Amino acid sequence: MNGADSLVKTLLAGGIDVCFTNPGTSEMHFVAALDANDGMRCILGLHENVVTGAADGYGRMAGRPAATLLHTGPGLANGLSNLHNASKGGTGIVNIVGDHATYHLQYDAPLTADVAGIADAVSDWRRTSESSRHVAADGAAAITAARTHPGQIATLILPADTAWGPADGPVEPAMPPPPAVPGDAAIKAAVEALRRGSKTALFLGGPNLSGDRLEIAGRIAVHTGARLWSPMSNARTDRGAGRVTVERTPYPVDQALEALADFSDVVLVGAAAPVAFFAYPDKPSRLLPPDCRVHVLTTPTEDGAAALTRLAEAVGAMKSEPPLTQFEETGLPTGDLDIDKIAATVAALMPDEAIVIDESLTSGRNLDRLTANARPHSWLQICGGSIGIGPPLATGAAVACPARRVLALQSDGSGMYTLQALWTQARENLDVTTVIYSNRAYAILQMEMRGVGVEAPGPKARDMMELQRPDLDWVSLARGMGVEAARAETAEAFNDLLAVGLARRGPFLIEACL
Amino acid sequence: MNGADSLVKTLLAGGIDVCFTNPGTSEMHFVAALDANDGMRCILGLHENVVTGAADGYGRMAGRPAATLLHTGPGLANGLSNLHNASKGGTGIVNIVGDHATYHLQYDAPLTADVAGIADAVSDWRRTSESSRHVAADGAAAITAARTHPGQIATLILPADTAWGPADGPVEPAMPPPPAVPGDAAIKAAVEALRRGSKTALFLGGPNLSGDRLEIAGRIAVHTGARLWSPMSNARTDRGAGRVTVERTPYPVDQALEALADFSDVVLVGAAAPVAFFAYPDKPSRLLPPDCRVHVLTTPTEDGAAALTRLAEAVGAMKSEPPLTQFEETGLPTGDLDIDKIAATVAALMPDEAIVIDESLTSGRNLDRLTANARPHSWLQICGGSIGIGPPLATGAAVACPARRVLALQSDGSGMYTLQALWTQARENLDVTTVIYSNRAYAILQMEMRGVGVEAPGPKARDMMELQRPDLDWVSLARGMGVEAARAETAEAFNDLLAVGLARRGPFLIEACL
Repeated sequence: MNGADSLVKTLLAGGIDVCFTNPGTSEMHFVAALDANDGMRCILGLHENVVTGAADGYGRMAGRPAATLLHTGPGLANGLSNLHNASKGGTGIVNIVGDHATYHLQYDAPLTADVAGIADAVSDWRRTSESSRHVAADGAAAITAARTHPGQIATLILPADTAWGPADGPVEPAMPPPPAVPGDAAIKAAVEALRRGSKTALFLGGPNLSGDRLEIAGRIAVHTGARLWSPMSNARTDRGAGRVTVERTPYPVDQALEALADFSDVVLVGAAAPVAFFAYPDKPSRLLPPDCRVHVLTTPTEDGAAALTRLAEAVGAMKSEPPLTQFEETGLPTGDLDIDKIAATVAALMPDEAIVIDESLTSGRNLDRLTANARPHSWLQICGGSIGIGPPLATGAAVACPARRVLALQSDGSGMYTLQALWTQARENLDVTTVIYSNRAYAILQMEMRGVGVEAPGPKARDMMELQRPDLDWVSLARGMGVEAARAETAEAFNDLLAVGLARRGPFLIEACL
Repeated sequence: MNGADSLVKTLLAGGIDVCFTNPGTSEMHFVAALDANDGMRCILGLHENVVTGAADGYGRMAGRPAATLLHTGPGLANGLSNLHNASKGGTGIVNIVGDHATYHLQYDAPLTADVAGIADAVSDWRRTSESSRHVAADGAAAITAARTHPGQIATLILPADTAWGPADGPVEPAMPPPPAVPGDAAIKAAVEALRRGSKTALFLGGPNLSGDRLEIAGRIAVHTGARLWSPMSNARTDRGAGRVTVERTPYPVDQALEALADFSDVVLVGAAAPVAFFAYPDKPSRLLPPDCRVHVLTTPTEDGAAALTRLAEAVGAMKSEPPLTQFEETGLPTGDLDIDKIAATVAALMPDEAIVIDESLTSGRNLDRLTANARPHSWLQICGGSIGIGPPLATGAAVACPARRVLALQSDGSGMYTLQALWTQARENLDVTTVIYSNRAYAILQMEMRGVGVEAPGPKARDMMELQRPDLDWVSLARGMGVEAARAETAEAFNDLLAVGLARRGPFLIEACL
């Protein structure tokens, strides 16, 4: 058995059975080991940021890490920005990054790079294997790290000779330490804050926006009058009919300041205190009122489930009925297409337990409100702000949940960063319906330029924010990668195409012309 | 005047008048400053690796740096692998990377990242501006660094408040120190090595593969009997009719060992001693014979032009006639298309002073030999081994040299990493003709897998090296980005399409089906 073989067997022993890959020469022994061991599903991406973003989507929906296979420092660099997003979202991922053989590094061959330095920019855990006999234990440690609550980026650098040299066998990964449970003082402070009723917000983040936790938070809110809020971007929010609805912090600073203006107390449950996405001249970075008291019930690495249960018991809310959202049947819009009509159609046609990938940016302005009473669904956002997450995230979520429909709401400028993911969707025949908001602009920059005080940008500035000359043709781009696609210019056409897309097997793309 | 304005004026004062951009919110004041100042050409890329790869192509052909504009740590990360390539190729680039306002970093907003850590992986020079009044001086220092021989990666991190705060005015960049000239001992050792005639190779790298230097090297070779060699990958080689032809180190280790087996002495002129691209079990990393003597005439940072002149004078070769390559008229191939026929057509139709971008990988096997006697041209290769350089490199080279034709020879798998560059070629109406070698595989990996000892890869391994299911349709991909394209299935069709592509204004893409 060689090192690569011992690592693949260790991954399988650790419950990792999906590997998103973009290999190169230094990973050929690992590829051979993937091939030789049953049970590992290998999914090729044609760009590394597809690979890492797919692992993020998989991890968010499967609740356990996928592995990635990347080629040396530059391959890792290509996947770095979606690892940044995954890290900010608290997704566990095990990256296997091949490198030159240990003895070859001294020669500074072309691909020689500071792999560890690149990895450290996004990794919670990083190790370079020193010999083929260490690889299995190193891999086991990476798995334990990736599974540490709520999820961590673990990067194992695998020099080629540690993959091809001899090994003793796989290693069973240890269980990570359980997340810390908050102490009495934190519970007591939260209880006191909740006495202030609607002037208090429970700010829920990370895994506290799905499942039982959300129901328990709903019980607390109903019982105390507190409001339920969340950050502006969240890895996964379960919402819609039958779920407890949580309000979301708006992106525009002025709207956020207004929305949060009346709170005297905020109790953080796995979330940070809300801050502006960017700084702007003469606007504050912190979004809470200056005199608002902030109480940390749990940090993102602590046990939110136990904390919410203890808090509900402390305020006597466990028997309250959580405020479950009602389904509202809505009609289909007609006439000229606009972003609110797209939202209305999405709300009307979204199937039960859809997974919505939201990289709609400015085009998603009212999506949150207009889909609040749709059928139950999971909503996945971009947590690290690095655009180009949508197509890969949709890919990984579909791999994790083959029985659920993935609906990817995608702004055009962002989608162009990782359009290669469409090919993987086609190869794996994934049930992903992508809606491109085709406004032919970096519309968010047009908005931001006004936000920083430039009212009338000149021709060079406008050119850097428009995707015109030439217009992108998303139908051709999708077909070029084997994904069927069509264009919608009216609401009626969009209604029809979305129904078609959601009913068929495999991927489909709709270019919604705005 | 604000910091951004002072920086743009400093760039212009430093002779930088092209900026490849992919901006975000934190760069909006810099965008406004680009807009407000005449003389700076701004070119948008839809992915950061297009931006950095284009700056590399520009720098190689213009002989001076372009600027890039990138958005925070993740934006820099997206462009990192082509900066790695540029760094290995010795291209000067000034990266302007926006970041959060200094006072906003403490809040860990989503895009907060270790920008400096990411930059350090590829930068020869890196600084974070501390105040708007320092920005101009910092920019001037970056320009000086980027212009340091043969060219360096200089990265200036620009927090948003240093862009929008007050500044005093631009700063004139200092000239970089001239490259060191080799001393008498190095000349003497090289002269002695050259006495061994054809058992000695002059290994030319970096800027020593173009212009007068090549002619002087040719005089030395003719006079002493020494052979002229170059590394396997070079930033720019001027070659073809009327030029001195230099042999190139083969990529396959066994071929390289054989080609270099007879040398007793190697004189390095701006090149490193040749090493294997990758390590392989039971093969050496060093490609020269174990007893071959290696003499460093100049390192890559030293003055190769002065060194070659001094060396030619020392051996009395300045009056020798350099061995200039003869033009050979060749016919056009017919019948089924294959890679050698593509090379033959390229050799026959290549116009005078074409710029050939070579990311053909396995498909380029005999390109070097078959084009040696074509019309004079420049040949640009991938120096850092990170695939996906071709389309951006072609873009930047075409911006630098609007009077020359760019012919991009592109493998399909590599092209998919940065296909977004086609859109920029269309927007700027650049005279780039791209030939996609459409073999629907990572053929180099299929070759490498055999090289590491796996003779019959199984289905999972094969899947990770094939680009089939679905086939990529490059004609649709190109059209989706506004580039006209057509498919060639025969040699005759390829001949016709290449003639069409090279004759028209603006970009054109040929999918050569193999």
